[in-house]
Amino acid sequence: MRRIFLKIAYDGTNYHGFQVQPNGETIEGVLNRELSRILKENITVIGASRTDAGVHALGNVAVFDTNAKIPGEKVAYALNVSLPEDIKIQQSMEVPLDFHPRHQKTVKTYEYKIYNARFPSPQHRLYEHFTYYKLSIEKMQAAADYLIGEHDFKSFCSIHAEVESTVRTIYDIKVTKKEEVITIRITGNGFLYNMVRIIVGTLMDAGQAFWKPEHMKEILDGRERSLAGATAPAKGLTLAEIIYPEAATLTEENRQFHS
Amino acid sequence: MRRIFLKIAYDGTNYHGFQVQPNGETIEGVLNRELSRILKENITVIGASRTDAGVHALGNVAVFDTNAKIPGEKVAYALNVSLPEDIKIQQSMEVPLDFHPRHQKTVKTYEYKIYNARFPSPQHRLYEHFTYYKLSIEKMQAAADYLIGEHDFKSFCSIHAEVESTVRTIYDIKVTKKEEVITIRITGNGFLYNMVRIIVGTLMDAGQAFWKPEHMKEILDGRERSLAGATAPAKGLTLAEIIYPEAATLTEENRQFHS
Repeated sequence: MRRIFLKIAYDGTNYHGFQVQPNGETIEGVLNRELSRILKENITVIGASRTDAGVHALGNVAVFDTNAKIPGEKVAYALNVSLPEDIKIQQSMEVPLDFHPRHQKTVKTYEYKIYNARFPSPQHRLYEHFTYYKLSIEKMQAAADYLIGEHDFKSFCSIHAEVESTVRTIYDIKVTKKEEVITIRITGNGFLYNMVRIIVGTLMDAGQAFWKPEHMKEILDGRERSLAGATAPAKGLTLAEIIYPEAATLTEENRQFHS
Repeated sequence: MRRIFLKIAYDGTNYHGFQVQPNGETIEGVLNRELSRILKENITVIGASRTDAGVHALGNVAVFDTNAKIPGEKVAYALNVSLPEDIKIQQSMEVPLDFHPRHQKTVKTYEYKIYNARFPSPQHRLYEHFTYYKLSIEKMQAAADYLIGEHDFKSFCSIHAEVESTVRTIYDIKVTKKEEVITIRITGNGFLYNMVRIIVGTLMDAGQAFWKPEHMKEILDGRERSLAGATAPAKGLTLAEIIYPEAATLTEENRQFHS
């Protein structure tokens, strides 16, 4: 038995999220089906991040176990032939059988993109949330800075989430703008349910100057979901990268954080 | 009677080109239908560029005549409400009744994008042609430089085209690369049928070093389609901009070339 690591990119527009659902196509469902077909075994992947319906990924991670003799690096080529255009493997390799994509230290980076222009754009419709309200990226960055570090992020967690602790660490948040596209890049050791999208919704309020950036501290300290802003739409969110800093057997690319 | 100018962006993936066809949805068909519905008149647009099936635009131009009293600038807002997500107006304004989008001097800029990576990417699938063959942008630029200026571009014209003259002027070609995306930006006073896509196919041969860049001069001078490379796929091509340098009544944005 061997364990294969997959780095997966997908456009989440037409999927009901990563995790297998009783109704509707999912990323995990497509991977299980195509891997089983190619390898002629019953394959079930274990995903690193169960992204929501409509959320995209450049580098989600999954592993699966197989008896097949195909070299680890060749899985990407073989699988990409069968996968639809909106799911493509970016890397594959053999890893030790005890490598688990969730039960170890990870550093995750999400990118949220906002198309901030007068009119919507066909070319920007799939991976960016459109708004014509003027947003100040300076105010957004100033508000975001209060979130960096280890905090209780209860205010930024969906009330439907069931978790033991709402304490997480955000290593970095960068708000940048290039032409009409604002990118909010957030890196942390893990995120609560809807946390990135609620942070983005709150930063959009800061960017429109509904309140001063220092009010972000009160929202954080209040530890109540109702204090924060709306949950920003799924389509603007992309899981950019998952890094395993302590997985010595992975390649350097999978261990080192790319800023 | 008033004439309204439209700057139109579209994703051509799901359309049979710009021009109305007996079978299949076209950009022009959607514009005519939605304008007629909103303005309660029979509206027929006159397009500047009849882009092929699968080709995209950031700034194609069309005009139409109407008896309606809606201010020119408001047409974009009203029309965008009815248009599908993959066609959106970027600008609208009233122009003189004798403004014709084709019968006057124009400067057109096309962009062709190539996703040059080991594996295809869902996020790059719609507007970029994927190839894993290594392309040298230095060789592509060196070959492209031979095409700049006024030339007979017969070698780069589809044999199905019926035109009086195959002489055109290319003002500039720039080949650039950012991460995995190669962009070929071509500006000229007009282009023959499939000319940009044949130039790109030929530049891809130069980029793979099938021949030395100076061979481009022989291809050009030979004035025969068979000397040039393949026609690159439509999906990589975007009509970026149409400039009317002599239309004094337009805004500065529509008269000045943006490099």
